[in-house]
Amino acid sequence: MKEFDQTAAQAARDRQDQLTKPPGSLGRLEELAVFMAGWQGRERPRIDRAQALVFAGNHGVTQQGVNPFPVEVTAQMVENFRRGGAAINQLCRLAGADLQVIPLELERPTGDFTRTMAMEVPDLVAAIQTGKDAVDPQADVIVLGEMGIGNSTVAAALAAATFGGTARDWVGPGTGADDAVLARKIGAVEAGLKRHKGAATAASILGSYGGREQAAICGAVIRARELGIPVILDGFICSAAAGVLLVNDRNALDHCLIGHESAEPGHRRLVAVMGKTPVVGLDMRLGEGSGAAVALMILRAALECHNGMATFAEAGIG
Amino acid sequence: MKEFDQTAAQAARDRQDQLTKPPGSLGRLEELAVFMAGWQGRERPRIDRAQALVFAGNHGVTQQGVNPFPVEVTAQMVENFRRGGAAINQLCRLAGADLQVIPLELERPTGDFTRTMAMEVPDLVAAIQTGKDAVDPQADVIVLGEMGIGNSTVAAALAAATFGGTARDWVGPGTGADDAVLARKIGAVEAGLKRHKGAATAASILGSYGGREQAAICGAVIRARELGIPVILDGFICSAAAGVLLVNDRNALDHCLIGHESAEPGHRRLVAVMGKTPVVGLDMRLGEGSGAAVALMILRAALECHNGMATFAEAGIG
Repeated sequence: MKEFDQTAAQAARDRQDQLTKPPGSLGRLEELAVFMAGWQGRERPRIDRAQALVFAGNHGVTQQGVNPFPVEVTAQMVENFRRGGAAINQLCRLAGADLQVIPLELERPTGDFTRTMAMEVPDLVAAIQTGKDAVDPQADVIVLGEMGIGNSTVAAALAAATFGGTARDWVGPGTGADDAVLARKIGAVEAGLKRHKGAATAASILGSYGGREQAAICGAVIRARELGIPVILDGFICSAAAGVLLVNDRNALDHCLIGHESAEPGHRRLVAVMGKTPVVGLDMRLGEGSGAAVALMILRAALECHNGMATFAEAGIG
Repeated sequence: MKEFDQTAAQAARDRQDQLTKPPGSLGRLEELAVFMAGWQGRERPRIDRAQALVFAGNHGVTQQGVNPFPVEVTAQMVENFRRGGAAINQLCRLAGADLQVIPLELERPTGDFTRTMAMEVPDLVAAIQTGKDAVDPQADVIVLGEMGIGNSTVAAALAAATFGGTARDWVGPGTGADDAVLARKIGAVEAGLKRHKGAATAASILGSYGGREQAAICGAVIRARELGIPVILDGFICSAAAGVLLVNDRNALDHCLIGHESAEPGHRRLVAVMGKTPVVGLDMRLGEGSGAAVALMILRAALECHNGMATFAEAGIG
């Protein structure tokens, strides 16, 4: 496993202090440049190849009426991704990311976590492996996203199982639940927490609640860490999925940024317990990796400044 | 003067509701697309030509020791802009904006506002005209920025004169004041407010405190409004400059976005009294239009989604 290179990060900090600006005046852009330097292990980090991975899955808990959209929409949206018609297609093109969409057995939803395990071990292992295998070892940064009707309910359950708190702390409207749907989401998460209350490891939590796309996100995060590739997580669902890894290792997400603060109410709480500061806050709540792709543009801005600016000495100032 | 086209804006809203995403789930990106549609007067707004204008000026109030950098740095930074070595050069290249840097009589600083008018009428008129003339009528959006040693003190004075409050409400560390410099900044603004307390119009406020780059920003904002071109203001100094126009017409900045919330403490107060919500918040405090240039990338993201996404009907969903 590659770790953060303190020497490269310090060299990047030193460079930032020599660039033609008051020290610290680029704010978060400076921090992002140093973050990238440390994970890439070079004073001047770069993004020649950005890989965006969007994992899609279906969820048995949709049987509990937790989403206003029919489950078929997951496959329809995957087709929309393939045809280039979704938000993530436009954002990846603009941000310069190569988008890969990876559906995970959409025709075979996970088990309804209110009544059974979402995934038995072979299914869980396969989904994690799919995520690991998707990572391009040549990537300079990886953008992660997801699609799955009902998966904000899954994410709320994962967050509650990982970080504690009640179903109401974590359940929100997702992509459009009314009060009746919201009540069913809360009920489903409460039922799940009761049924799976013994789940205490990352694997048992993922197996209990699912889904496959959450397990694949964990696989991609783990593989990226092995390779030392920085990751941009998307919003609530993606953060909750990766957050499960903190149960086993509280430093497991040190190489991850959270791209944006979602409008989903539980995301603010989630980023706080994860100790992260999202890159942007644009009240997005779409998923697909859309907020992470926007954050990639900010990351590119940080590196353009870091690598392209003149130093005071070069400019003959001061 | 062109006004916001409600019909085009409504057509853009209707389009947003047909795109393949839950309604509202792109958050601020949807609002930005509608804003652009209304000001450009078309359902599908575009940014073929983005113009970035950075005005630079020098300030007599630097005689009061309000800035740790010598006044010569303004001209040195203008030269750095011309050579492509500053943050704004990198950000404009990445965001696809044509950068023009316009120094305003750097060798002839404005009057020290603690003791005299910053600009007499002919100087003020000339600076406003420079700003007006700089606007490219073919631009689809204009990014505004500034450079001027000492101009965060000028901005604090402008904000206090325009919106009320004390010097302490508006003065902050700028690009790096220590406590002693901060005390001199507050003292200078207090002295200015006392001397120019009769200033009650946009012109008299600008003439009282300056500087030339602030007047040019006002000129560019006025001209952009005449042409119906949307504007992205930068942070504290740029917002305070344009804010002066609200004294004469509370709708004068309806075509303006504020690109980012600056780390300068007074900016939060300023955007609140201006009734604006900054596009991003990255703790930047550099000026040069750097935050506005980052916001241009977000604006492009909004339009890519708005124009490029498939509708539900096109994708055969629902």
